[in-house]
Amino acid sequence: MANETVITLVGNVVDEPELRFTPSGAAVAKFRVASTARKFDKTTNAWVDEEPLFLTVNVWRQQAEQVAESLSKGMRVVVVGQLRQRSYETKEGEKRTVFEVEAEEVAASLKFATAKVTRANRQQGGGQQQSRGSQDPWASQGQPAQGSGGWGSPQSQGGGQEPPF
Amino acid sequence: MANETVITLVGNVVDEPELRFTPSGAAVAKFRVASTARKFDKTTNAWVDEEPLFLTVNVWRQQAEQVAESLSKGMRVVVVGQLRQRSYETKEGEKRTVFEVEAEEVAASLKFATAKVTRANRQQGGGQQQSRGSQDPWASQGQPAQGSGGWGSPQSQGGGQEPPF
Amino acid sequence: MANETVITLVGNVVDEPELRFTPSGAAVAKFRVASTARKFDKTTNAWVDEEPLFLTVNVWRQQAEQVAESLSKGMRVVVVGQLRQRSYETKEGEKRTVFEVEAEEVAASLKFATAKVTRANRQQGGGQQQSRGSQDPWASQGQPAQGSGGWGSPQSQGGGQEPPF
Amino acid sequence: MANETVITLVGNVVDEPELRFTPSGAAVAKFRVASTARKFDKTTNAWVDEEPLFLTVNVWRQQAEQVAESLSKGMRVVVVGQLRQRSYETKEGEKRTVFEVEAEEVAASLKFATAKVTRANRQQGGGQQQSRGSQDPWASQGQPAQGSGGWGSPQSQGGGQEPPF
Repeated sequence: MANETVITLVGNVVDEPELRFTPSGAAVAKFRVASTARKFDKTTNAWVDEEPLFLTVNVWRQQAEQVAESLSKGMRVVVVGQLRQRSYETKEGEKRTVFEVEAEEVAASLKFATAKVTRANRQQGGGQQQSRGSQDPWASQGQPAQGSGGWGSPQSQGGGQEPPF
Repeated sequence: MANETVITLVGNVVDEPELRFTPSGAAVAKFRVASTARKFDKTTNAWVDEEPLFLTVNVWRQQAEQVAESLSKGMRVVVVGQLRQRSYETKEGEKRTVFEVEAEEVAASLKFATAKVTRANRQQGGGQQQSRGSQDPWASQGQPAQGSGGWGSPQSQGGGQEPPF
Repeated sequence: MANETVITLVGNVVDEPELRFTPSGAAVAKFRVASTARKFDKTTNAWVDEEPLFLTVNVWRQQAEQVAESLSKGMRVVVVGQLRQRSYETKEGEKRTVFEVEAEEVAASLKFATAKVTRANRQQGGGQQQSRGSQDPWASQGQPAQGSGGWGSPQSQGGGQEPPF
Repeated sequence: MANETVITLVGNVVDEPELRFTPSGAAVAKFRVASTARKFDKTTNAWVDEEPLFLTVNVWRQQAEQVAESLSKGMRVVVVGQLRQRSYETKEGEKRTVFEVEAEEVAASLKFATAKVTRANRQQGGGQQQSRGSQDPWASQGQPAQGSGGWGSPQSQGGGQEPPF
């Protein structure tokens, strides 16, 4: 990947993460994050919430499973990923655009919480590494097996893939 | 400001920046930026453009005038600011959401260009500081007056200037 | 705060976080993060690690205690905060500079791990808000008392809490 | 490139950019940026400057030449790049570490200035694109001809290269 618009999003998980699997078995989790900035109002001398920013986050493979297992509605998260725009047409033929974050990294904030962290089973990880080869779940959809490495570590791939929902 | 979602956007100016003034004389410039990420396609062994990300950028006061004077369609820019969401209703009563960047800093990229930079006349800056007032120059487009503030808290206007609100 | 250099740091905790308290009872945790970028070497057709980036992270108050309780050596974290430079003189009179991150947000990455997240006891939070006082817990290491503030302006402490200073 | 620590640095150019050329003719420009954050002091009810953050910026190839031509001491810039650490030994055998930014993008801020922007001669650009092949200036130094594409556009390469000074 190159020339990506990278974003760090800090906010609360709006709904339970949805975990799905592609026909070939790759996991993808999807959830929304609400981030509310505050502004100091000099007239009233008080902080006022702005309109919250809502963004849908997609996360892939092993991390998707770990996100689905770890996160619930209301939790505060830090998401690092690529801000993307996706255009589509409604059934009525209207053009719409959504903005989404393809997450490189999803993390549980410790600002208002503690976390008991457990390293994921490497065995699983190994399995997934293999799936980047010819077994790639997306291969049948004509997408490159490896997003390119890009901004993320070699293990990250989700980049250019369309979610299966 | 606090808890803002800060974004660095690198891309090309899509159209000529529009400059307007509030009734009280504060300048605001508006323009769109297109940012296109590329992905390496291993099948074809070539870079492929992703769907471009289009974002509208608002910039205020002295910087707005300098942006309008300096930037034209096609130029490559770096914008640092707050990613915001704004909801509104269409005449038909449908709810819509737009994403915009309230720019703290707009800069002319030197990646594919040279720039002859001239420090702005401080006198002018003073003149612009009068006040932004309660009426938004974009009001006819249904935008809220408090569009600004941005990533830069009022205090970050630099040079010790007091913001006009 | 204004005009800060905000950084998102993703890497592994190098050593156990050290938790200290100011005389007035405010907590501060300190730990190092190592972040290793990789570069694709076309000659060998393999990824090569670059020299790791090591940065010391400071985190304050309630979050400091939660960080100390949750993080251990080796864990992958995402830190969002202000990159700062601090100059000091050695006993020999040599001038040195260190770079540190004043964290606004420390989060446990879910890329290679799961996390059992528990919301912190608000009561505890209240207790910690007493004051950070003028004496820095790291003072014996020659660090300035005003090490904090971070990316989060005082107002960004969330939950409407007033910072203890 | 992968897993880079990306930073957006906004500040003033401290000294005139130094332009050098590698034996094979590739340009590299080097300059320092000072970025000063401000903090609100509740005791005095005034904004106070923090210790400035000084970072050395390296920028490569065509952009290096354009930077050297366009920027001077005192100008305000926006730099987007990779924060890196480089360790070395002094003649006395002491280990030292410096932090630098490998710039992907250097831009002239319009916050306090106007800019007359001129697109660079494509001919030059073309020439440089070729140099990424077997004529690569760094090839004789055993470094990969192409940084990897990485976070930047395919045209960006400087990533892992050591500056020639």
